[in-house]
Amino acid sequence: MKIELENVEPAQIEARSFEIITEELGEFPLIPGTEPIVKRCIHTSADFDYAKNLCFSDNVVSLAIDAIKNGASIVTDTQMGRAGINKKKLARYGGTVQCFMSDKDVAEAAKTNGTTRAVASMDKAAALGEKFIFAVGNAPTALVRLYELIREGKLDPHLVIGVPVGFVNVVQSKELIMDAEVPYIVARGRKGGSNIAACIVNALLYMME
Amino acid sequence: MKIELENVEPAQIEARSFEIITEELGEFPLIPGTEPIVKRCIHTSADFDYAKNLCFSDNVVSLAIDAIKNGASIVTDTQMGRAGINKKKLARYGGTVQCFMSDKDVAEAAKTNGTTRAVASMDKAAALGEKFIFAVGNAPTALVRLYELIREGKLDPHLVIGVPVGFVNVVQSKELIMDAEVPYIVARGRKGGSNIAACIVNALLYMME
Repeated sequence: MKIELENVEPAQIEARSFEIITEELGEFPLIPGTEPIVKRCIHTSADFDYAKNLCFSDNVVSLAIDAIKNGASIVTDTQMGRAGINKKKLARYGGTVQCFMSDKDVAEAAKTNGTTRAVASMDKAAALGEKFIFAVGNAPTALVRLYELIREGKLDPHLVIGVPVGFVNVVQSKELIMDAEVPYIVARGRKGGSNIAACIVNALLYMME
Repeated sequence: MKIELENVEPAQIEARSFEIITEELGEFPLIPGTEPIVKRCIHTSADFDYAKNLCFSDNVVSLAIDAIKNGASIVTDTQMGRAGINKKKLARYGGTVQCFMSDKDVAEAAKTNGTTRAVASMDKAAALGEKFIFAVGNAPTALVRLYELIREGKLDPHLVIGVPVGFVNVVQSKELIMDAEVPYIVARGRKGGSNIAACIVNALLYMME
């Protein structure tokens, strides 16, 4: 078998990828203004399901961009999500990315309360009293806890990116957060991941350039 | 709509997820000995395509486990992949995870040679003369470079985990590496990612317990 490589300059690889994605999406209907986010999720996963499963609350994209512009910081539920976010671009506006999952006090609180560390790390974020953007790519328990904190009036985030992945309470946690009266970007169903969480944040950052 | 959460203890979530995956895979034929890797990729992505697209060279799982046991280190092509690997478990055997993508000399070499940084970081790894495990979850150019280095006799890895994701030369890069006479674990086609690269390494580590 002859394997032929396409000759694309390094700087053009991403643009060429987005061309292919746009071509293959064809006439598939996307919500105006959300296209760069949907396409970047497909770019990150090579999975066209994201054209169907991504859900956006009203005006969430402009809300998110305003928040970032005004220096909002981002809380993730994994170090992987943290690693994937373009921290240099975020820092231009004053924001940082925080992940409390490896913190000693989070491990202790989780043990004491019989919760996941993800729950304890959302509690820690809430206790800081700052208005954050949450990017949850792994733990449905984190998303459920955000729902509870918001409903109890203990947390008021700019928005919640709710894209945990998996099989136990993942589907439900996403339906809950879409019912929480908080701006959201959610990948409905089982799919998502830390990479998807990071790429949604990055898509927002790249839309601001 | 009533949203009901399944009551699963934090410590049991992963086991319950694997039960569901096993149930839904049903009688789907997997290569004996590779099941924990395939199932962990599905666990990480909620994408059952990995049951079909993962390719393993002969005895690669036992080869990989032996290499890790003997202290092999891992080179990734993203900081996200690095972040996702269980470094504590790997350290038990003496291995570390290295990612050269943010190194200054790599950025300079890429610029000088008109390559991607991923290519330059593979060259840097090769120049170290160490027998590594490569875990490529993002850049097909990295995988193509590994193929060239192996064919030119400049690199002799323990194995290559080849799971870049995307649309430009991704499919081809994986076919090349499977043709390179190196032990491999490859996700054939467009799918993969840094999360998948990390989870394959973790699956190997958890099989060793």
